[in-house]
Amino acid sequence: MRLKLSERDLIRLVRARAGRRSGAVLQGIGDDCARLAPQPGYETLVTTDFTLEDVHFRREWHPAESVGHRALARGLSDIAAMGGEPLAAFLSLALPGKLPRRWVEDFARGFLALAKKFGVTLAGGDTAESPGGILADVVVVGRVPKGQAVLRSGARAGDGIYVTGELGGSAAVLHQLLQSGKAPKGKLHAAHFFPTPRVAAGRALAVKRLASAMIDVSDGLSTDLSHLCEESGTGALVNEHSVPRPVLPGASSLHYALHGGDDYELLFTAPRTARVPAKIAGVRVTRIGEMVKQKGMWLVDSHGQQKALQARGWQHFGG
Amino acid sequence: MRLKLSERDLIRLVRARAGRRSGAVLQGIGDDCARLAPQPGYETLVTTDFTLEDVHFRREWHPAESVGHRALARGLSDIAAMGGEPLAAFLSLALPGKLPRRWVEDFARGFLALAKKFGVTLAGGDTAESPGGILADVVVVGRVPKGQAVLRSGARAGDGIYVTGELGGSAAVLHQLLQSGKAPKGKLHAAHFFPTPRVAAGRALAVKRLASAMIDVSDGLSTDLSHLCEESGTGALVNEHSVPRPVLPGASSLHYALHGGDDYELLFTAPRTARVPAKIAGVRVTRIGEMVKQKGMWLVDSHGQQKALQARGWQHFGG
Repeated sequence: MRLKLSERDLIRLVRARAGRRSGAVLQGIGDDCARLAPQPGYETLVTTDFTLEDVHFRREWHPAESVGHRALARGLSDIAAMGGEPLAAFLSLALPGKLPRRWVEDFARGFLALAKKFGVTLAGGDTAESPGGILADVVVVGRVPKGQAVLRSGARAGDGIYVTGELGGSAAVLHQLLQSGKAPKGKLHAAHFFPTPRVAAGRALAVKRLASAMIDVSDGLSTDLSHLCEESGTGALVNEHSVPRPVLPGASSLHYALHGGDDYELLFTAPRTARVPAKIAGVRVTRIGEMVKQKGMWLVDSHGQQKALQARGWQHFGG
Repeated sequence: MRLKLSERDLIRLVRARAGRRSGAVLQGIGDDCARLAPQPGYETLVTTDFTLEDVHFRREWHPAESVGHRALARGLSDIAAMGGEPLAAFLSLALPGKLPRRWVEDFARGFLALAKKFGVTLAGGDTAESPGGILADVVVVGRVPKGQAVLRSGARAGDGIYVTGELGGSAAVLHQLLQSGKAPKGKLHAAHFFPTPRVAAGRALAVKRLASAMIDVSDGLSTDLSHLCEESGTGALVNEHSVPRPVLPGASSLHYALHGGDDYELLFTAPRTARVPAKIAGVRVTRIGEMVKQKGMWLVDSHGQQKALQARGWQHFGG
């Protein structure tokens, strides 16, 4: 059954499911602004991410619950990449008039389940009727103790380059969807539809002051590593065989791992002398290369041959 | 000349014009999150507002500079309505691939001129290619000294109801655009295309503790007053002849003043004993009625006759 979902209904629906206050949130939905409690000794972190139909997801491929989960996961992952702790989320949602109410309920369920898992309060947002497709913009506000934020700019030549988890699984699923319209099951499925932002790992790296620079892998390793290099004024060598990736049929897994997006793993550097454990907060950590003085990026194969690595990260569906 | 504006170009354009740090903003654009400085003794305010093509503006009616100005003005007005001070803005902007670069430059100019006027740093955002029309979502972060925030819920029966400036001018311009496609010049023109958020007046009302409750008039007086009543658990009497409005041909000015939107004036209540001046921060203040115990809203005409006032605020163009 299709029901016209008015803006007022949407506000009621989200409001009924959202917290009005909790922890750092003095006042959530229900006034002109949300009010957050001051956090002495902390810096405030703010990040904002679009989730647009036919750019970041397709309605026929992505269940609404996954769209809600991913919309929030992108912001949580940005907070993780600073070594921060997420506190509050703001959801701006514009929906086509004829969208089934069920879609919105499923979206809200996916969004709020992830929010609950990370102790994040939905503290506000905006609603509108969209003249086109589904549009969401999610803001996540977090905090990090003063002086603990891990920036993109802190890497030095000689630092090791590390990633959490595996790379390329999400892009491999997308490729399969593009080819056949069907998604695989199991671990790969979760990597694409319900990625886990690495908040605990990011916090641990910041608290232990292990990471000299950090970013999340949202646009693809090659692109996100180029951001670390640019902001830090370094270059990078990546060992092809070290890049952790799922086992896929064919030779495509390296391509996805290097250039696929939406992994939401952490990419960080650590000084040569740092003792980086093999697991952080339960997540595998792999050394994949090192920062170098000469600007540029190079891929080193198992014979020690180097070739240039271009930033060719995933450009969403809009290409 | 039409130029395809890539996402990378857009980031460069906005980044070149945005501050990286200033005042409360430790770090703006250029990392996974913006970092804001802790403000001891203050609460943090957050508000988020969509600006969508064909919902909040039309490209053939609204110059890009006005669209940029209004996109930010909406958030500044929300901060004003809490009695707060704006600090930082975040701009998420999704643009159609074929949009002329000129449009984006004009939008940015309008946005940043208003930001500069209010000492607000553009501290981040997101960019994407839009599969449909122009989409913006603007977050404004502000602050208010602890205990000074003016809420929607603080009004009591017997409190006077006040508004700043005049109401209905913006809606009158919109009506004229709908009728003839042409906008009037002069004061009315500015009310619609370049409204001034009442930040200084809002601050003054909070500092002097004059306002018991406050909201900005963005959806129309009748709708925004209904929010004050709902959150405060009161009703309201409005004196028809007191509602300040521009002189318009015909009898329509009252209708626009009651139900028109996008005024960005402040609507507030003050205890009977409060001495509310006729001007606050250079802006005229008018008493238009009073809060009453009985729930509901009534309009009182010059003969003392009461009729029910329904919340029929402006529903944007999508209505």
